[in-house]
Amino acid sequence: MAYPYSVFLVNVGTAYDRYCMEYATPFTAEELFQRAAAVDGLYAVDLVAVPDFIKDPFHYRKCSEEHGLKVVSIALDIFTEGVWKQGSFSSPDKAVRQKAMTHAKEVIDLLPEFGTDLLTIWPGQDGYDYLFQSDYLGDRKRFQDAVLELSEYKPGIRICLEYKPKEPRTHSYISNAGTTLLMLEKMGKANVGLALDYGHALFAYENPAEVVALCKMYGDKLFHVHINDNYRYWDDDMITGSIRTLEYLEFFYWLRETGYEGHITIDQFPYREDGLMACQESVNWMNAFQDIVARADKDEIHACFENKDGVRASKMMRKLLLGV
Amino acid sequence: MAYPYSVFLVNVGTAYDRYCMEYATPFTAEELFQRAAAVDGLYAVDLVAVPDFIKDPFHYRKCSEEHGLKVVSIALDIFTEGVWKQGSFSSPDKAVRQKAMTHAKEVIDLLPEFGTDLLTIWPGQDGYDYLFQSDYLGDRKRFQDAVLELSEYKPGIRICLEYKPKEPRTHSYISNAGTTLLMLEKMGKANVGLALDYGHALFAYENPAEVVALCKMYGDKLFHVHINDNYRYWDDDMITGSIRTLEYLEFFYWLRETGYEGHITIDQFPYREDGLMACQESVNWMNAFQDIVARADKDEIHACFENKDGVRASKMMRKLLLGV
Amino acid sequence: MAYPYSVFLVNVGTAYDRYCMEYATPFTAEELFQRAAAVDGLYAVDLVAVPDFIKDPFHYRKCSEEHGLKVVSIALDIFTEGVWKQGSFSSPDKAVRQKAMTHAKEVIDLLPEFGTDLLTIWPGQDGYDYLFQSDYLGDRKRFQDAVLELSEYKPGIRICLEYKPKEPRTHSYISNAGTTLLMLEKMGKANVGLALDYGHALFAYENPAEVVALCKMYGDKLFHVHINDNYRYWDDDMITGSIRTLEYLEFFYWLRETGYEGHITIDQFPYREDGLMACQESVNWMNAFQDIVARADKDEIHACFENKDGVRASKMMRKLLLGV
Amino acid sequence: MAYPYSVFLVNVGTAYDRYCMEYATPFTAEELFQRAAAVDGLYAVDLVAVPDFIKDPFHYRKCSEEHGLKVVSIALDIFTEGVWKQGSFSSPDKAVRQKAMTHAKEVIDLLPEFGTDLLTIWPGQDGYDYLFQSDYLGDRKRFQDAVLELSEYKPGIRICLEYKPKEPRTHSYISNAGTTLLMLEKMGKANVGLALDYGHALFAYENPAEVVALCKMYGDKLFHVHINDNYRYWDDDMITGSIRTLEYLEFFYWLRETGYEGHITIDQFPYREDGLMACQESVNWMNAFQDIVARADKDEIHACFENKDGVRASKMMRKLLLGV
Repeated sequence: MAYPYSVFLVNVGTAYDRYCMEYATPFTAEELFQRAAAVDGLYAVDLVAVPDFIKDPFHYRKCSEEHGLKVVSIALDIFTEGVWKQGSFSSPDKAVRQKAMTHAKEVIDLLPEFGTDLLTIWPGQDGYDYLFQSDYLGDRKRFQDAVLELSEYKPGIRICLEYKPKEPRTHSYISNAGTTLLMLEKMGKANVGLALDYGHALFAYENPAEVVALCKMYGDKLFHVHINDNYRYWDDDMITGSIRTLEYLEFFYWLRETGYEGHITIDQFPYREDGLMACQESVNWMNAFQDIVARADKDEIHACFENKDGVRASKMMRKLLLGV
Repeated sequence: MAYPYSVFLVNVGTAYDRYCMEYATPFTAEELFQRAAAVDGLYAVDLVAVPDFIKDPFHYRKCSEEHGLKVVSIALDIFTEGVWKQGSFSSPDKAVRQKAMTHAKEVIDLLPEFGTDLLTIWPGQDGYDYLFQSDYLGDRKRFQDAVLELSEYKPGIRICLEYKPKEPRTHSYISNAGTTLLMLEKMGKANVGLALDYGHALFAYENPAEVVALCKMYGDKLFHVHINDNYRYWDDDMITGSIRTLEYLEFFYWLRETGYEGHITIDQFPYREDGLMACQESVNWMNAFQDIVARADKDEIHACFENKDGVRASKMMRKLLLGV
Repeated sequence: MAYPYSVFLVNVGTAYDRYCMEYATPFTAEELFQRAAAVDGLYAVDLVAVPDFIKDPFHYRKCSEEHGLKVVSIALDIFTEGVWKQGSFSSPDKAVRQKAMTHAKEVIDLLPEFGTDLLTIWPGQDGYDYLFQSDYLGDRKRFQDAVLELSEYKPGIRICLEYKPKEPRTHSYISNAGTTLLMLEKMGKANVGLALDYGHALFAYENPAEVVALCKMYGDKLFHVHINDNYRYWDDDMITGSIRTLEYLEFFYWLRETGYEGHITIDQFPYREDGLMACQESVNWMNAFQDIVARADKDEIHACFENKDGVRASKMMRKLLLGV
Repeated sequence: MAYPYSVFLVNVGTAYDRYCMEYATPFTAEELFQRAAAVDGLYAVDLVAVPDFIKDPFHYRKCSEEHGLKVVSIALDIFTEGVWKQGSFSSPDKAVRQKAMTHAKEVIDLLPEFGTDLLTIWPGQDGYDYLFQSDYLGDRKRFQDAVLELSEYKPGIRICLEYKPKEPRTHSYISNAGTTLLMLEKMGKANVGLALDYGHALFAYENPAEVVALCKMYGDKLFHVHINDNYRYWDDDMITGSIRTLEYLEFFYWLRETGYEGHITIDQFPYREDGLMACQESVNWMNAFQDIVARADKDEIHACFENKDGVRASKMMRKLLLGV
């Protein structure tokens, strides 16, 4: 038993930050596919519709086919270029919003070509930094209206919104599970759901396992999962499992309990690591976590729930993890 | 022009913490009313239905009348006694839930006696601490169902839910603006809204001004405001205005813009301060903030919004605050 | 192989917080000793010189002897009474400082009666809350001078200072490993060291394992360890091992590597748990962690260090923890 | 009366982050000097010894002279290239350490050519990300030894170490005021001090005003100040004064009280703003703050200190800031 793991294509490559442009030499798209294919346990990739992709999407398709990698989802690129610096769909600038809409529809049109129905929207630039900089009502309304329009653009597609409390803005509009599910509830479209990034939840002071339950309760809205690890204060995007253990067990438990059937896409920034190996590490940790969760004693867990017994839960986890 | 200020009755008195039971000698209810009445600019109090209140609510009413203090709202006491340690309306224990329901209905019945229609629910114990301790689906469902039941118990009452990310639990169910408005949206009851505690929003990494807008957008749900100040990481419950300045200006601006007509209730824990004087300080700061906001140049603010211009917003704020 | 575990006597009992005075019925000192003795794997307690202790310390000694529990250290009580609300040794009020000094010398005089040489000082009230409230130079100077005086009061005693970033003040003077070791370095007294509370380090955004190394490097100053677990943002004082796993492994590794020979004292606040069982859980987790660390492949770890290889460290940890 | 303001040359230009390489078109060095010179109230710049500078430092000198801009300090570039990805002076790789040493000495040799004696060291890559990745003792020792060597390389130079809790590493070795002053105390070199970045202190949960006092107390070690603003959780590097007000007043008060005579260098990342105008905003806010602090009633402040009176401090601040 294993969840179908995917990886963001670029994540098997290199990463840079605001101080250092090049920790290592970047790879070509072709090389990235080759590297993703070399990870044992991966069978798919997630793509981002960056300019290089848009220029020749069929090169990407060819690469994915050659390496036997399914494409799980394509994410809009509404964050890597200066034009988006004050937002995409939420921008007060009509020309920018139209550009975003055109891009989105272009990507939606491409989805069937890649054998997928899932569009990912991470509106990283849609937010604000300064006090009195933004019309919170107008900006949010524009964003919501745009997603609504997209949801009706083509039959058969699904859209997932990925939230994050901040970065690159100090404040994002699609900031946490609550604000995202609220917008989904208000829109009431069956084909729009939520993409949960495990690390984003952590630094929003959410418990990712509880977010899984929340999505179940409010419309079965968990459409996609991104995974990584961090120290709780920032989106460190580290190897999945390199810091936390028990929290992943609870997360995978709730994915099973709620019948999640989507993918789990590794989303890491290997600044100083080999991206391929960092990705392999994440697969290996997740396999181990899932094997452990598969052995969990549900009756014992339910007994903990019934009494909200923290001591018993502690004992159950130790037994499950370490057998003692 | 001034918002009607209130204060939680106990907040003009003393506070204790988990290390020190008595920083100063507590006051009687009668003395607390006397002290609240002595604060220049206050004209109301918020009450909590603690055992001493329930024992003789009419003593409290008499005191409020004698001191000419309106009662803005009464809050349930579902957090000061051991029986609530694993939650109230969300508890898996039916007897506890029933006790909470009985208490709530008793308090609702008392509302008209105090000339108010507003019930405050802060479910501080409804959450969890340990991993695998809680059935997130069941607990949340029970809570939501109970509030729904309460909303229909008596015509003419209004209920406000106060969220907080944590404390006294490490995780609260009603945790932030998003999860609260989501529940309200799902319930769809016109008489159930949100109580925004300014400090809770701060340490949820929310911008309280944006929360005001969010409440406006999703059903005009801002029913009540609690106010205080903190350092952003914890519910320090300090004197309003003693740390932040510009953030309050933006907050009061959005309260005006969205036409908020409720009260602003001071909610502080004066561990080492004289509660009366700490409350007076908050009133004085808020009066100053509102005078400043009343002078704001709306056209200039809208110009900032249209271009999302952080530099211009900075200049506008300095001009507004300091005149330079 | 096991570190000598101790527990703060009160921690096998009950705890309260600023909302709820009594989650459960408190125990007598005698009952607390009985409960501590019932924890399998504990052989010692840490005491706090609260008024009940000062009133009759020999009752406490008798209890400890009857239950075969060694006393590891006695901590000053400079935080549970209103007199300390603006600090103890750092207070600008001379009478308060003298009271603290008298109390400290009284406790030092008692140490030999309890078969220990170790005084613990946690200056929880020595700090500040408000801007412009405190003379940072004067307050800190007074505190440092007092500890210097205490260090010379009696030959043969040792003093450990326990830091914490905040709570009950919003800012503590003895705030983190750096400011504490700095003061120790400046004082230059061989008998004054540091008490590391694992949870305090976590929410100071320190890595406790690195703090162990820091103490080694700057004077071999690790005199005492308190242990518990939390979610990184606050001193949640939860069961040790109930959240983190790998971080404890690294911590115990560095305790071994640096030759730590002191005690490990469980320091938890079991608000809703049975204190005895919560303590037992912590012992059980720590035994497991130490067994695992004892099996660690040092050569492999050093290889990680030499290349600062995060991927290899991840693999090493998984192998060590899960064998896969 | 005004502090001599400087700015990091690049900060009047553009910035990028890990998602977007180019929010705006970058400027040449010459243009940057021109822009810095256009900021009213600036009279100096701080430089970073990036490759472009090293290639032709005298071009930079010529520009600074042409625009009448003094050079306050030159910072090592031990963070913008891949070679430093696992640290500079702390690296376990001897070749990397030597490269850092060579670079540092080259920059020190250039200091007199720029009319300054002050070298800035921000060891942004000297830290770690993963558990078990690093030998905390060895790495820190190597760093300390290197700074010691540098301090003795040339007579008449001064070195300032700039701390930061994290970023680009998840953990920095020179992490906060305490660990930095501890290293300085241990080294005992009169010509090595501390560079306080206001924003770094904020997100280390320090009070910058208290850090100023701490530097005074432990060897008068405040050599340099960098300034900006943020939301307390991250190094947002925003316009100085755009968020906080009272905290800056306390900061400037303590700079005056401790007789700070160094510079104040604006250090911002204007991702979406015009860097020149963002810098001008910071100057304007700081001028206003200093005018206000110059009017402060010291007797009243000392009265607050003597009683640690938070209410009185609140009143004093409001009077000072708003006159009411």
